[in-house]
Amino acid sequence: MHLIIAGGVAAGTKAAARARRVNPDIAITLYQDESVVSYSACGQPYWLSGVIPSRESLIIRRASDFEADGIDVRLRHRVSSLNTQARIVQVHDLDHDRLETAHFDRLILATGARPVIPAIPGIELDGVVTLRTMVELDRFRSALDRLQPKSAVIVGGGYIGLEVAESLQALGVAVTIVERVERLFPRLDPEMGQRVHDHLTGQGVRVALGEGMVEMIENEGRVATVVTASGRQLPADLVVLAIGIRPNIELAEQAGIALGSTGAIAVDPRMETNVNGVFAAGDCAESYHRLTGAPVWGPLGDIANLQGRVAGENAAGGDARFPGILGTAIFKTFDLNIGLTGLTEATAREAGLSPVATVISAQDKARYYPGAQELTVKLIAESGSGRLLGAQAVGLGAVDKMIDIAATALLGGLSCRDLENADLAYAPPFSPVLSPIIIAASTLSRKLSV
Amino acid sequence: MHLIIAGGVAAGTKAAARARRVNPDIAITLYQDESVVSYSACGQPYWLSGVIPSRESLIIRRASDFEADGIDVRLRHRVSSLNTQARIVQVHDLDHDRLETAHFDRLILATGARPVIPAIPGIELDGVVTLRTMVELDRFRSALDRLQPKSAVIVGGGYIGLEVAESLQALGVAVTIVERVERLFPRLDPEMGQRVHDHLTGQGVRVALGEGMVEMIENEGRVATVVTASGRQLPADLVVLAIGIRPNIELAEQAGIALGSTGAIAVDPRMETNVNGVFAAGDCAESYHRLTGAPVWGPLGDIANLQGRVAGENAAGGDARFPGILGTAIFKTFDLNIGLTGLTEATAREAGLSPVATVISAQDKARYYPGAQELTVKLIAESGSGRLLGAQAVGLGAVDKMIDIAATALLGGLSCRDLENADLAYAPPFSPVLSPIIIAASTLSRKLSV
Repeated sequence: MHLIIAGGVAAGTKAAARARRVNPDIAITLYQDESVVSYSACGQPYWLSGVIPSRESLIIRRASDFEADGIDVRLRHRVSSLNTQARIVQVHDLDHDRLETAHFDRLILATGARPVIPAIPGIELDGVVTLRTMVELDRFRSALDRLQPKSAVIVGGGYIGLEVAESLQALGVAVTIVERVERLFPRLDPEMGQRVHDHLTGQGVRVALGEGMVEMIENEGRVATVVTASGRQLPADLVVLAIGIRPNIELAEQAGIALGSTGAIAVDPRMETNVNGVFAAGDCAESYHRLTGAPVWGPLGDIANLQGRVAGENAAGGDARFPGILGTAIFKTFDLNIGLTGLTEATAREAGLSPVATVISAQDKARYYPGAQELTVKLIAESGSGRLLGAQAVGLGAVDKMIDIAATALLGGLSCRDLENADLAYAPPFSPVLSPIIIAASTLSRKLSV
Repeated sequence: MHLIIAGGVAAGTKAAARARRVNPDIAITLYQDESVVSYSACGQPYWLSGVIPSRESLIIRRASDFEADGIDVRLRHRVSSLNTQARIVQVHDLDHDRLETAHFDRLILATGARPVIPAIPGIELDGVVTLRTMVELDRFRSALDRLQPKSAVIVGGGYIGLEVAESLQALGVAVTIVERVERLFPRLDPEMGQRVHDHLTGQGVRVALGEGMVEMIENEGRVATVVTASGRQLPADLVVLAIGIRPNIELAEQAGIALGSTGAIAVDPRMETNVNGVFAAGDCAESYHRLTGAPVWGPLGDIANLQGRVAGENAAGGDARFPGILGTAIFKTFDLNIGLTGLTEATAREAGLSPVATVISAQDKARYYPGAQELTVKLIAESGSGRLLGAQAVGLGAVDKMIDIAATALLGGLSCRDLENADLAYAPPFSPVLSPIIIAASTLSRKLSV
């Protein structure tokens, strides 16, 4: 049996490794259009800033590691077309610019996603960069080295934009973030997003909200100015496009594989597409929200790994299920940690639920213990039942722990009344006597009882 | 209505505050035999070592804070006897050495626990100290200042002994831990406890296992040598008794209030004793294990707060339930963090369950991210169902996060198959792409499928 995997960053390589583990006998070929596989895109902002000294450390496993497991890795090869009836892919050998074909019994599409590039004047100018693949990372780094920017405009106030804001200010570049909607990181409810906004402006980042970018103006062949919808001219030696990403679904689409309502490839819980034996995983694939059951697209590295594991297992003859996602996310910008899981008050209402919420601030360790930091937790539950719907946390402290507790509580279908009596780990170096999440759950329980 | 509370550290003060919040109109009197209320006993080792510079910072709230809420706090008053029929307590005013009586409608026993003091020769010598109340803390500190010990024996390898080992070595005192059983912190399964042992000896702590202390020998009126059962003589300018604690149940016992099988005061889920209107909470009270349903005694500060909240609410006319505990615990010794929740392999077997376990080691952040630390996670599930039974974690890294995720998973009745697909918070500064707990759950799932 021959398993072909199209794409080799997170989902593709995880699927390959899992398939090999499940079935030592099948032939596995992995095509990857870059010259490396298995790298951490999420670590890129930290190499740009110098927090991570070595570019090599972003590479998790090398092609040779996979080869040693009997996985045939073809670098700089892109699967360019797919015939699901004949079970054949056409592959473009990028270095030799020639096409080859290969037969598969099973196929995993792990083609990823790519940044949105708006079609506006000046978009192709030198100094306009994106961040996603290692190719893009190298271009970004080269632009920094060559252009020595003093000022940058980051287009997009999502997590990549906010992470890169930290990286660029660390390099001495004055940053302005342009965001089309009226607030930064709009996935958070407004009062939590405001804390992110205040932290960024406190770090000297300029923020231009409520208008998009319409044009870039050059000076001596490189970008110099970003023009916004209202006509503001923002100086920019460097422009980072972080507007969003979209799934790479062209190969699937061309082959007649069904897409879902989110625009990503539709899959069942086995990560199988509507074509028998053809799976999809990672940023190109759709998922389901565990709380609402609605199709969602959650293009993140950990989800790619979980989905890749399931796709790889099933493609190799196993029978695993991917139960969907909670929309958990976390990132930091400067010293501020920001996380969320489940539904926000806004998305809970959109889903037809009746949410009740509370926001509390507390220390993440005993107040007297060195290094205790404040954080703010918002907890959302369904009115009546008290069933937890989501959590958001922002602060200098252990946001990651709060979000992971909340995500696990959501997984267990807990109510805020369950959570307020949780037996969590307390000792002064680790937590206040009652965890902030317990305090939030207790406050929310009282609110629900009124 | 008059609510009397006997004891004012964690459970007693929490109960008082909660009762006042639930019912602004009742009279509340809190008797506390020390000269302070509401302090953090858990922080004491860190004030001894100097990690926490100020003794005052261990005091969470002062008597005057409670008085401001209309709670009558009587310091240096100990409830010395109780008549549940007449609804009367006798109170010993320690400063004036006189007895007074008071009538109550509701009573909360929050009398705490005290260190076990073995009846062996030399036990009353100068330089033999314990750690629990602020009175004991001050005696400990005074012994350090007066005796300037060069060597110390800590009797007992539980968490207090291991915390104090760190404190004393930080002060330049050479520490030997004497533990009667064959391993340190025996609540952990042996292979996890071994990691604790290795870390301590790596820090220069001497460890004498498998024999108790039988005698202390003096020199010039102060302790100088500890003699163990096998006749070993250990030099000790200071001896710290950390053998264990027992609940202060004499008041309850004298009044005919029922004790449970653990020896602590028996309570129902409302924290009410067998006497109507008399509640117990905190270290003097029993609890139930959420996984086995068995009575357990979990004398820890966070449990005291949770129980105190429930007792206070109910004593004031509310109707709250305390759902029991998981036996979650965490502490650090030197750089090593140690935590557990739920059942160990050993206690699962004792409870008649058939456990399957796995031990994995992983980094707590992306491997390339600065500050990533290794930790070891042991995960235990029921064979067949895969239902999670417990977790243990030891390491330099985010043990607290692993334990809190596991405790919440136990609360939700999750299986390791649920946990292996958990949507936890990933970004390089916070976690590897798959959390160590997910890796452990995945490994355990595979083991269960075999």
